[in-house]
Amino acid sequence: MNWIYFADLAGCAVFAIAGTLLAFRKQMDGFGVIVLASATAIGGGTTRDLILDVPVFWVADPTYFAVIAGSALGTIVWLRFKAYIPVNRLLFADALGIAFFTVLGAEKALSNGVHPIIAVILGTMTAVFGGMIRDVLARDVPMVLKSELYATTCIAGGVLFVLLYPLHPGIAMVSAMLATLGLRLGAIRYHWSLTVFKEPPGY
Amino acid sequence: MNWIYFADLAGCAVFAIAGTLLAFRKQMDGFGVIVLASATAIGGGTTRDLILDVPVFWVADPTYFAVIAGSALGTIVWLRFKAYIPVNRLLFADALGIAFFTVLGAEKALSNGVHPIIAVILGTMTAVFGGMIRDVLARDVPMVLKSELYATTCIAGGVLFVLLYPLHPGIAMVSAMLATLGLRLGAIRYHWSLTVFKEPPGY
Amino acid sequence: MNWIYFADLAGCAVFAIAGTLLAFRKQMDGFGVIVLASATAIGGGTTRDLILDVPVFWVADPTYFAVIAGSALGTIVWLRFKAYIPVNRLLFADALGIAFFTVLGAEKALSNGVHPIIAVILGTMTAVFGGMIRDVLARDVPMVLKSELYATTCIAGGVLFVLLYPLHPGIAMVSAMLATLGLRLGAIRYHWSLTVFKEPPGY
Repeated sequence: MNWIYFADLAGCAVFAIAGTLLAFRKQMDGFGVIVLASATAIGGGTTRDLILDVPVFWVADPTYFAVIAGSALGTIVWLRFKAYIPVNRLLFADALGIAFFTVLGAEKALSNGVHPIIAVILGTMTAVFGGMIRDVLARDVPMVLKSELYATTCIAGGVLFVLLYPLHPGIAMVSAMLATLGLRLGAIRYHWSLTVFKEPPGY
Repeated sequence: MNWIYFADLAGCAVFAIAGTLLAFRKQMDGFGVIVLASATAIGGGTTRDLILDVPVFWVADPTYFAVIAGSALGTIVWLRFKAYIPVNRLLFADALGIAFFTVLGAEKALSNGVHPIIAVILGTMTAVFGGMIRDVLARDVPMVLKSELYATTCIAGGVLFVLLYPLHPGIAMVSAMLATLGLRLGAIRYHWSLTVFKEPPGY
Repeated sequence: MNWIYFADLAGCAVFAIAGTLLAFRKQMDGFGVIVLASATAIGGGTTRDLILDVPVFWVADPTYFAVIAGSALGTIVWLRFKAYIPVNRLLFADALGIAFFTVLGAEKALSNGVHPIIAVILGTMTAVFGGMIRDVLARDVPMVLKSELYATTCIAGGVLFVLLYPLHPGIAMVSAMLATLGLRLGAIRYHWSLTVFKEPPGY
C-alpha cells in the first residue's frame, strides 16, 4: 500500500516544519533546527518501533531524513523572506500530521499482533511523542499536557480505527484519519476541552 | 509466582496516583493526567525492558493500563470531593512503589542473565525513571536529583537483593523490599541525606 | 581492535566528569551526581544501540560503570580540595569525548550494515544525546541547541569518516577523530557559529 508510505512522509514533513518554527521562535542556530525538526518528525515513530521491537522505520530508509532536511530548509527560506509564522495554516498542518500518525501507528501495532487497546495507545504515542520531546528540549510546556483535546482526539481516532479495522483496513484508515482531523480542528475552532478538576487547587 | 505480578500492578497503581496528583497541582486537563499517570507508572519498567531487549511488559497485557486508568480516575474523584492531597500517605505509597519496582526490576534483570552490578542499576532505573520522566514533562526539578536518599535507597535495596539471591530468591525479594521501604521511610522521617560537596559553589 | 574499547572508556570518563561538574554547579546530592554522570556518559551510546537493535553496550560489561563511578569520585575529591572548575581543560576534554563518540558510533552503525547517511546521524546521536539528556534533567538549555557548531562538528566528522571508511577503516577513524576535535576546538576558540535566521523574530 504505497499511499501509506506517502502519508507517513507527509506527516514527517509537517512535523519537521512545526519543529523548525519552534527553533525560529527560540532563536536557535543551524543544528538546533535540525534537532527540533527531527525530534518532532521521528520521535513518535521511533518510540513506537522500539516498544514493538520492530526495526526503527528510518534506519533502513534515508528518505525520511531527506524529507525532514528539505522541509526544514524550505521553512528557513520562507522565514528569511516572510519572517512571520502562518499560525492557522500551521495548526491545520499539525492536525493533519496527528491524524496520519495516529492511524499509521495504530495500524503498525495491530499488524504486529498487539491487543487493540495497546494499538490505540501506541497510535497516540506515535502522534504525540515527537512534539512532547520537542517541547521538552525547547523548554516549553508540552502542548500535549495543556492543549485543547490534543491527544484526546488521537485516542478517539485510534478507537474508531481499531473498531472499523476488522470490517475493512483501508476504510478504517481513511475514516479514522478524517475523524481525528475533524475532531482536532473542531477543538481548535471551538476551544473544546476536557476539564477533570473542578476548581484550581487552593495551595 | 503470582504475587510478583500483583506487586507489579500495585506499584503501577501507586505511581499512577502520584502522577495524577502532580497533574492536579499543575492544573492539567484530562489527557495531561493520563500522560503523567502512565509515564510515572510504566516509564521505569519500559526503559528496563528496552535495555534488556525483552518484550516490553505492558505490550502484551492491557491489565496495566486498566489499573493505571482506574487509579487515575479514583484519584480524580477523591480530589473532586476532598480537594487536598494526603501528603504523608502519598509518601508512604511512593516508598512502597519504589521498594516493589527496585526488587522486581533487579529480579527481571538477574533472570535474564546480566551481571549483579548491572541488575542493581536496572532495578534502580525501574524504580526512579518513571518519576524522572514525569518531573521532566511537568517541568519540576526531578525529585531523584534533589530528594533525601531517594535513589540511594534503591541502590542499597538492590545490592541486598543480589547478595541474598543465591541463597533463596523469595527471601531475597521480601527482605530487599522491606529494607528499601524502611530506608526510604527513615530518610523521609529523619531527613537523611548524602552530601558530597563540602560547601555551596562560590560562583 | 583493543584501542577502540579504550577510546570508548575514555569518552565515558570524560563525559562522566562533565556530568559531575554540572551536578556540582546545581548543588545536587550524591545520587544526583551519579545520575548526571551516567546519563552524560552512556545516554548517547544507549540510544544508538536501542535504535540499531543490538545489545546495549554496558549491559554485558560492568567496566563502564566502574569507569563512571571512578571519574565521578575523582571529580568530587578534586572539587573538595580545589572548589573551582578548570573550564578550558573541561572544554578540551568534552571535545575529545565528542570526537571519540561520533566516530565510534558511526563505525558501530556501519558495521551493522546501515546506510552511510544513517551512520552519520547515529554517530552524531552517540556524541550529543548524553549531554542533551543531562541538560534536560538539570533543567539547563541543552548545549546542543545553543552552542557554537557543537553538533555540526559531529556531522562533519561523521561524513569524513563514512567517506574514508571504504579506503581503510583505521585511517578513517583516526582522521575523522582528529578532524572533529580540530573543528570543535576551532569553534570554541574563534566562536564560529551557523546562523540560519537572518534577524531576531519580531513578535
